[in-house]
Amino acid sequence: MSVRSAARTGLTLALGAAAGAGLSGLLRPKERALQPGSLLTECPVLPVLSAAELKVPDSSPSGPASSVALMKYGFPSLSNIKTRQSYVAAYDPRTRLPVWVLERLDSTSISGQSDRRKAEFREDPSVHEFHRATNADFRGSGFDRGHMAAAANHKWSQSAMDDTFLLSNITPQNPDLNQRLWNRLEQMCRTLTKQHRGVFVCTGPLFLPQRQTDGRLYVSYQVLGQNHVAVPTHFFKVVILELPDGQGVELRSYVMPNRPIPEQTPLEHFLVPIETVERASGLLFVSNIMRNTKNIRTIGLRNLPQILDH
Amino acid sequence: MSVRSAARTGLTLALGAAAGAGLSGLLRPKERALQPGSLLTECPVLPVLSAAELKVPDSSPSGPASSVALMKYGFPSLSNIKTRQSYVAAYDPRTRLPVWVLERLDSTSISGQSDRRKAEFREDPSVHEFHRATNADFRGSGFDRGHMAAAANHKWSQSAMDDTFLLSNITPQNPDLNQRLWNRLEQMCRTLTKQHRGVFVCTGPLFLPQRQTDGRLYVSYQVLGQNHVAVPTHFFKVVILELPDGQGVELRSYVMPNRPIPEQTPLEHFLVPIETVERASGLLFVSNIMRNTKNIRTIGLRNLPQILDH
Repeated sequence: MSVRSAARTGLTLALGAAAGAGLSGLLRPKERALQPGSLLTECPVLPVLSAAELKVPDSSPSGPASSVALMKYGFPSLSNIKTRQSYVAAYDPRTRLPVWVLERLDSTSISGQSDRRKAEFREDPSVHEFHRATNADFRGSGFDRGHMAAAANHKWSQSAMDDTFLLSNITPQNPDLNQRLWNRLEQMCRTLTKQHRGVFVCTGPLFLPQRQTDGRLYVSYQVLGQNHVAVPTHFFKVVILELPDGQGVELRSYVMPNRPIPEQTPLEHFLVPIETVERASGLLFVSNIMRNTKNIRTIGLRNLPQILDH
Repeated sequence: MSVRSAARTGLTLALGAAAGAGLSGLLRPKERALQPGSLLTECPVLPVLSAAELKVPDSSPSGPASSVALMKYGFPSLSNIKTRQSYVAAYDPRTRLPVWVLERLDSTSISGQSDRRKAEFREDPSVHEFHRATNADFRGSGFDRGHMAAAANHKWSQSAMDDTFLLSNITPQNPDLNQRLWNRLEQMCRTLTKQHRGVFVCTGPLFLPQRQTDGRLYVSYQVLGQNHVAVPTHFFKVVILELPDGQGVELRSYVMPNRPIPEQTPLEHFLVPIETVERASGLLFVSNIMRNTKNIRTIGLRNLPQILDH
């Protein structure tokens, strides 16, 4: 599938999702408002937020050839694709979160006069209102609105930076993590543009299981607000670094838990095999990259051989 | 997007997902095998199941015009589409489950000599092995391999019935539910073919939040086996019934919890507003249907006016 057809498909779906839904004015069940005593009283019925007719949003065309550049190593999946000036994202309408957000950084894109104080977090009108996070969902939750594509990665253009404030690029993030170690990981990606021509960064939420006292594995996560915005248990960041000609690419994959982490913890502690991210996220990276180069160095393996010893 | 291009896209993605991934032979971390003492020891690392090179599966072409017929009211989403003889499905590689499975039943399709004893549950080779459920994942779990597209809906052709045994059409289902009330719901759908020309059935898993003792809402579900196959908290079934010419369609939407339910509970107890399913699943039904007819009767509203009173 070409970049153009992929982007076009994404727009078609986004428009299709927003059209119609004429029943919304008829249905105003309150939460858990099924017949009392029925087995379904335990099934939470989401409240109807608004009877307003749904608007078909203007399609936001992709930025200047940027999505073509991003496609170089392929997209990890192709569902609900959102093409922005600063990134390409896949959206999960069930969790109300991006599945992955892909950016390409270089020394030009991270420089400029754009100011994050001029940007505002805002709903994504290309997402159907049933499946859309709002600022109200985050209010008082104790979670930051954490960028997946980082604002500071896109200083080259105010509108590109503004795009990173769309809530479809945002996940609920522990404030301590967001402001300290996650921020350091983002800064590291920008620093890498000094030694590498192209730095591709793919970021997203994870929902990892834990073993409970009954010996079984469970995935458990909070949901926020009226729209039940999912709080990820972890985050991944996969960094693809282009090496000088003929040397292929270097791959670094990180997983961080969505909780406070001591500030001085080395970032290397969070390196994991790319396969770990691929299995846990439902995404694929290596097979896409292998179409473009046969030479992949994985930092995780080189620096952490002990991963293989256990 | 036309049916043909949708189906073609699905095949392209399925093939793309299965190609490559040449690193798998290098990576054999055991579960939780990161550096001891690291913050990530709590991050479960999925085991590598096999170092065998991934095979590109034969593409399974769509059945005889069946996907065209299924498209009449649109697909609720367009990601990882699998086109089979008996149904169309969207697959979620993270949960290792279908998101939705759409069938069209009529008196012909539910009749025939096909025998479920000749069919075997089997892995779906069109899903990358990292994201694929296996029979071993279900073994000893206490859960049935519950069909989303029911086997008995496709007696017209043994190979169509066989397709319903692909594990990408299966979710872990409480045996009591699967064999009693869920079975009755499936039987009801077949009975409806007597009075209706076309019966469209869309079925899938749900992961609904519950309020915990801390007053917050959490989604919590078990995962099974080495591949962490998600156990849904609930299931939905949306039935679209075609009425005689000019009268539009009738819509019935059911949600059942994934646990034993007293056998004599009326099926009507599980009717919910379609919007409940749309919000909880991340899917859209009504807007697609509205493109084909302006006349939708919703059984949930007619029979259960008390839903609106609470």
